[in-house]
Amino acid sequence: MIPTITVFERSPDRGMGQARDMRVRWALEEVGQAYDVRLVSFSAMKQPAHLALHPFGQIPTYEDGDLALFESGAIVFHIAQHHAGLLPDDANARARAITWMFAALNTVEPPILERVSPMLLQYDKTNYEQRRPIVEKRIRDRVGQLSDRLGDADWLDGAFSAGDLVMVGVLRRLNGSGLLDPNLAAYVARGEARPAFKRAYEAQLAVFTAASAGYPHLQ
Amino acid sequence: MIPTITVFERSPDRGMGQARDMRVRWALEEVGQAYDVRLVSFSAMKQPAHLALHPFGQIPTYEDGDLALFESGAIVFHIAQHHAGLLPDDANARARAITWMFAALNTVEPPILERVSPMLLQYDKTNYEQRRPIVEKRIRDRVGQLSDRLGDADWLDGAFSAGDLVMVGVLRRLNGSGLLDPNLAAYVARGEARPAFKRAYEAQLAVFTAASAGYPHLQ
Repeated sequence: MIPTITVFERSPDRGMGQARDMRVRWALEEVGQAYDVRLVSFSAMKQPAHLALHPFGQIPTYEDGDLALFESGAIVFHIAQHHAGLLPDDANARARAITWMFAALNTVEPPILERVSPMLLQYDKTNYEQRRPIVEKRIRDRVGQLSDRLGDADWLDGAFSAGDLVMVGVLRRLNGSGLLDPNLAAYVARGEARPAFKRAYEAQLAVFTAASAGYPHLQ
Repeated sequence: MIPTITVFERSPDRGMGQARDMRVRWALEEVGQAYDVRLVSFSAMKQPAHLALHPFGQIPTYEDGDLALFESGAIVFHIAQHHAGLLPDDANARARAITWMFAALNTVEPPILERVSPMLLQYDKTNYEQRRPIVEKRIRDRVGQLSDRLGDADWLDGAFSAGDLVMVGVLRRLNGSGLLDPNLAAYVARGEARPAFKRAYEAQLAVFTAASAGYPHLQ
């Protein structure tokens, strides 16, 4: 019996690994847990069967026996709690690693999402060009503070943890944007160089490649 | 030895309990843990001493012996893990309650923050009136899905948990906005009616009242 996660049948990011299943796949690879994948179309995501799993009609979800979870941060945390390798044993270090998970999701990601939404959603492009300097300044300020804290360390608090995994997953949204300073860009690159990241990335890319095989304009 | 949290010396919400120390105070009150408060001014928040505690120069922080944490979600989780009353004992129910904490902070709060920022930050008012229908539609859609999931239950998954505490803390940002349907407004009201919430609210209001005593125009 292995867990099953749901992922986009055809990811809107065209296999760049920006969909939130990437963070869950990465965590599962880090701890060496095999998993099954169930593909979900955009229309199926809004149907009762999927909404029963995920009240906001999104991916990923996580099913393991009689446990069903949603929300990538919660799923990564669940994986990290039940396998060795993603959270330190020392109680205080563990609490700090968990703090970085929450910081990634509630302090670092929200300003980044204000930049992502107008790129993904046609209806949100209203005046974005005029707002862009504001949005980008907010992102630069926040990731600048993060870079200051990281300093010349490899990871945010000692060894690589679920906090780094989620933070790198969030910061990757800025790849190619020019909004990450060299220090943080190197931090993201360290995360992306991990073998578990690479396996997760290839797995999600394979889904997109297979799904778009019949759609040459997407390739 | 009791923990110490940091809070705004003078909260920009004028004591309405919207600053994030409110969630931590509420959690501490729910579990019956006494705490000390250290006031921090806006200028002190950006100084090295505070940045060492909170890399993003915000409140709240949490210090208990040699453990220092930041990020309200992480602090509430830490409190919930170390005291009875905010997380169920059953492992699956506990994982679901934690899922609601993450959902509140990473799925429900980000669209709400897009509405809050232009109210708080002068530089972010650019074209907000034109964007407002988009921002409000996104909030309505998301909280509508949450309301559907809640249905006629009192709390999100069985008994009141840290998931409800954080979710109510997030939804309270919409008090008075007209963006909560009656079902969710009643959910928020149930949270606010808890004795622990009331004690936390009075405590944070007392800080603001004392701080503004010398500033009659703020009263």
